[in-house]
Amino acid sequence: MSLLDLFIEAGNLKRLPRTGWLLRGVSSPESIADHSYRVALITLFLADELRAKGIEIDAERALRIAVLHDLAEARITDVPLTAQYYLDKGRAEKKAAMELFIKTSNPREYFRLWREYEEGLSPEGRLVKFADKLEMLIQALEYERAGFKDLDEFWSALDSIRESEFYGHFRELVEELAEMRKELSRASR
Amino acid sequence: MSLLDLFIEAGNLKRLPRTGWLLRGVSSPESIADHSYRVALITLFLADELRAKGIEIDAERALRIAVLHDLAEARITDVPLTAQYYLDKGRAEKKAAMELFIKTSNPREYFRLWREYEEGLSPEGRLVKFADKLEMLIQALEYERAGFKDLDEFWSALDSIRESEFYGHFRELVEELAEMRKELSRASR
Amino acid sequence: MSLLDLFIEAGNLKRLPRTGWLLRGVSSPESIADHSYRVALITLFLADELRAKGIEIDAERALRIAVLHDLAEARITDVPLTAQYYLDKGRAEKKAAMELFIKTSNPREYFRLWREYEEGLSPEGRLVKFADKLEMLIQALEYERAGFKDLDEFWSALDSIRESEFYGHFRELVEELAEMRKELSRASR
Amino acid sequence: MSLLDLFIEAGNLKRLPRTGWLLRGVSSPESIADHSYRVALITLFLADELRAKGIEIDAERALRIAVLHDLAEARITDVPLTAQYYLDKGRAEKKAAMELFIKTSNPREYFRLWREYEEGLSPEGRLVKFADKLEMLIQALEYERAGFKDLDEFWSALDSIRESEFYGHFRELVEELAEMRKELSRASR
Amino acid sequence: MSLLDLFIEAGNLKRLPRTGWLLRGVSSPESIADHSYRVALITLFLADELRAKGIEIDAERALRIAVLHDLAEARITDVPLTAQYYLDKGRAEKKAAMELFIKTSNPREYFRLWREYEEGLSPEGRLVKFADKLEMLIQALEYERAGFKDLDEFWSALDSIRESEFYGHFRELVEELAEMRKELSRASR
Amino acid sequence: MSLLDLFIEAGNLKRLPRTGWLLRGVSSPESIADHSYRVALITLFLADELRAKGIEIDAERALRIAVLHDLAEARITDVPLTAQYYLDKGRAEKKAAMELFIKTSNPREYFRLWREYEEGLSPEGRLVKFADKLEMLIQALEYERAGFKDLDEFWSALDSIRESEFYGHFRELVEELAEMRKELSRASR
Repeated sequence: MSLLDLFIEAGNLKRLPRTGWLLRGVSSPESIADHSYRVALITLFLADELRAKGIEIDAERALRIAVLHDLAEARITDVPLTAQYYLDKGRAEKKAAMELFIKTSNPREYFRLWREYEEGLSPEGRLVKFADKLEMLIQALEYERAGFKDLDEFWSALDSIRESEFYGHFRELVEELAEMRKELSRASR
Repeated sequence: MSLLDLFIEAGNLKRLPRTGWLLRGVSSPESIADHSYRVALITLFLADELRAKGIEIDAERALRIAVLHDLAEARITDVPLTAQYYLDKGRAEKKAAMELFIKTSNPREYFRLWREYEEGLSPEGRLVKFADKLEMLIQALEYERAGFKDLDEFWSALDSIRESEFYGHFRELVEELAEMRKELSRASR
Repeated sequence: MSLLDLFIEAGNLKRLPRTGWLLRGVSSPESIADHSYRVALITLFLADELRAKGIEIDAERALRIAVLHDLAEARITDVPLTAQYYLDKGRAEKKAAMELFIKTSNPREYFRLWREYEEGLSPEGRLVKFADKLEMLIQALEYERAGFKDLDEFWSALDSIRESEFYGHFRELVEELAEMRKELSRASR
Repeated sequence: MSLLDLFIEAGNLKRLPRTGWLLRGVSSPESIADHSYRVALITLFLADELRAKGIEIDAERALRIAVLHDLAEARITDVPLTAQYYLDKGRAEKKAAMELFIKTSNPREYFRLWREYEEGLSPEGRLVKFADKLEMLIQALEYERAGFKDLDEFWSALDSIRESEFYGHFRELVEELAEMRKELSRASR
Repeated sequence: MSLLDLFIEAGNLKRLPRTGWLLRGVSSPESIADHSYRVALITLFLADELRAKGIEIDAERALRIAVLHDLAEARITDVPLTAQYYLDKGRAEKKAAMELFIKTSNPREYFRLWREYEEGLSPEGRLVKFADKLEMLIQALEYERAGFKDLDEFWSALDSIRESEFYGHFRELVEELAEMRKELSRASR
Repeated sequence: MSLLDLFIEAGNLKRLPRTGWLLRGVSSPESIADHSYRVALITLFLADELRAKGIEIDAERALRIAVLHDLAEARITDVPLTAQYYLDKGRAEKKAAMELFIKTSNPREYFRLWREYEEGLSPEGRLVKFADKLEMLIQALEYERAGFKDLDEFWSALDSIRESEFYGHFRELVEELAEMRKELSRASR
């Protein structure tokens, strides 16, 4: 076992770009780690909000999932949508996740957390998925504010956010974001 | 209250470089968010190791602290050592942290967590500090492996790591890292 | 004394980004040295124009001030507005400037020049401040022309330029710039 | 039919980094298109050399293969070795190549060329593979000369180059490269 | 003779930016090699289309020219229009091309190909020129889609494309591109 | 007349890389403006040192020359040594300088200053040349300290620095730099 190896490998997430932005011409886009960081931050605050509203959610579990959810990309990289049609990203990440966690003293537990996200098996896993999409949209807004365009298709994620079980609790936040985007589109027309 | 504003502001952490590397000639160094992400990852695994060894540590608390510990830099930026001699970074970050957390529904609690790190008030706060330094050294090793030099002074953090209350539990990991660095130095001589 | 140390330290200005642009999403923005160079260039031509118009201005003094005016940022970095609310940038730069100039054979004289800019103590110091703001606006225009957005707030500097004692002499130039910006806004609407 | 779509999609190759370098810490590494260009250049000169030596090789065919050989990566990206263990890159690229060529008026012919490279079905396909590896090693040398390290494992490609049917014809060139590398290693020890 | 030297020198094309974009504020623009690669790709498909239409064109010759056409820039760099008014780029590239090809076993032949492009001496040379301009416009469209502006003047190349002897054969493709651009302009107004 | 046009054109110097470093594999090297800034800074302090030693030197003149000495590169770009063999950079810059200064109210005077540098016509012009070379060597040292290699040939400028009329006055500074470099070479052997 070497946790150090795992930490070193996780360093790949800092070097690897999020390819979705790259392919649409965003020069020097965020890294996978950049994204993962804000997903964890969002998860923390959303979980606490839910608890404050009396919703049962295990914030620790959610935080753990958030930190682990993109770890397999340290081996697989951020395979973009254009590629996912041709290869089984899910299966690849699953296998990579399993082998990464073997380096730890409790592989099963970490892998279970990872699967809760990937397969939406628990409220916490689904909350991180919600946070993951929200994070992407906030980033899209930021790139658009900075002047980048051609990012329309990312906004389709708004639909899946609105269908989430958590949408009701964060409607205001989500719609505030949607409104900001609308204003931006209006301003640049 | 707008959590969305907080999330947007946290986006600064993706754009802001870690200035220590920049000043030593690392071109396009990691962002603050890159660093924070791996600190959270390391914290998660170290906390679990400690618990497995029977040490009492609140992993959730530690994770929360890890995610929040550099948030104030979204306003203050990563003020480098050369500047800290001239201005009170600690005080500035404290004030900024307070004002950032006001956007949340439980400012006091988040601020307490933040202080636990900053002032080393709890084992969890000190564990994140341990993870923070460890993360930096792993990054230093990675940059040196890639060919960057002039990073000697970062390795003085090894001393403070060895003086930490957690060193005993992670001696093997820390010394493995120290050994990797020694080998690297030998190889490039 | 070592002038060489001073020259080496000034190298930081090439590596450090101007954070105002960075925070608004300009990828790979100009360095502090990039900015300082054009401030010096602008100062040179404006000082000569003033003299040609019979205004008493010491061009050499102005040039010296231009070259020195951001030197303290080699230690302090370009602390952005978001941070200046929390820390005393002026005091920090003042102290850093003093200590930097100690490396020279005439610290007092250089420090006086630096203060003339910082505190607006002389026409030459105020001319460099005028050039500093003008340079920033020209850069803002260039970034906006290239497609970057979200730079509106920089243009508030236009007001302080218009209130400057030098505005009358460069009204045409300033308003030409303002007009270029208006046209750009119109075109992209 | 839309060749234009194909040309636009090929633009991805300019934006996508060669991940092998990226993962080893080369900051801002070459793009896939950068690599492909020099592969085509090398192929051209090697094919001509072979013909001059009386070896039967279809230079046009070789050139076509060189230009097409990485085209599928416009959809699949440069999936690194660490990922190829987990997913079937070959199959994915094959399918993507097929679908890309459907946009042309002669999909079968282009796909056949692509397979000649991928599966080593023709001398021309194998020559491009030879050029592909040679190109990578020249790039490795250039990065190492510039100061980047940690590229040792790329040099294992030297073995497969030496086993190629074309090695005998380009022994001098290959060994000159190997010698340059040895000298570099010696110098930096 | 050393082909290896030639290959190494060609590596400059990966490092050198296309200055036209750079000067208009495109951050981290494509390299010369990036451009050359797609010119070769376009040439390949256009030549095949022409042959399919019964036009006599030597596709191999065209491909060779495409691969070689910017090679001299490995020494001369991509001297921008603003400079060409002051120095004789054509003459410089001619001389550099000659001296580069001396490293090969058939300098005359390669130089002849190079001149066919530069001076438009053969249909194949002119086809590559057509592909060269087309490539630039596709890139301009991609940058504009990504949000970059200030690229209007590049589109004047559309005129020379329309005057080309090949325009008739690729009218549909060219006008599709022109239409895409118009739509983009409309959308961003 | 439009000084504004001149200032805008000078913005090119921020965007254009110093090609010497680029060609040797320094990723994201300094801009021409970065370099020019430190040349001006060095000139200021050296001129003052000379005056303090009783040497007659017009510091204002020297400063003006420093600020103007690379301005023509805003049109010509930083044509590297490899290209200067093929084209007359001096003549091109001369013509470009002349035409740039026409935008000012005193073209003749500025052009004279520019020529003093280019042709070494005055002590002030030669001092800036001395500063220009010194600046390049300091930058070379910084890149080498950061880990970049392959910069040996730049150090031949040390010879011409030692032959300068100003060497005697700055022997200590120059030899301190030379010594730093030697130590660095020793350390990395």
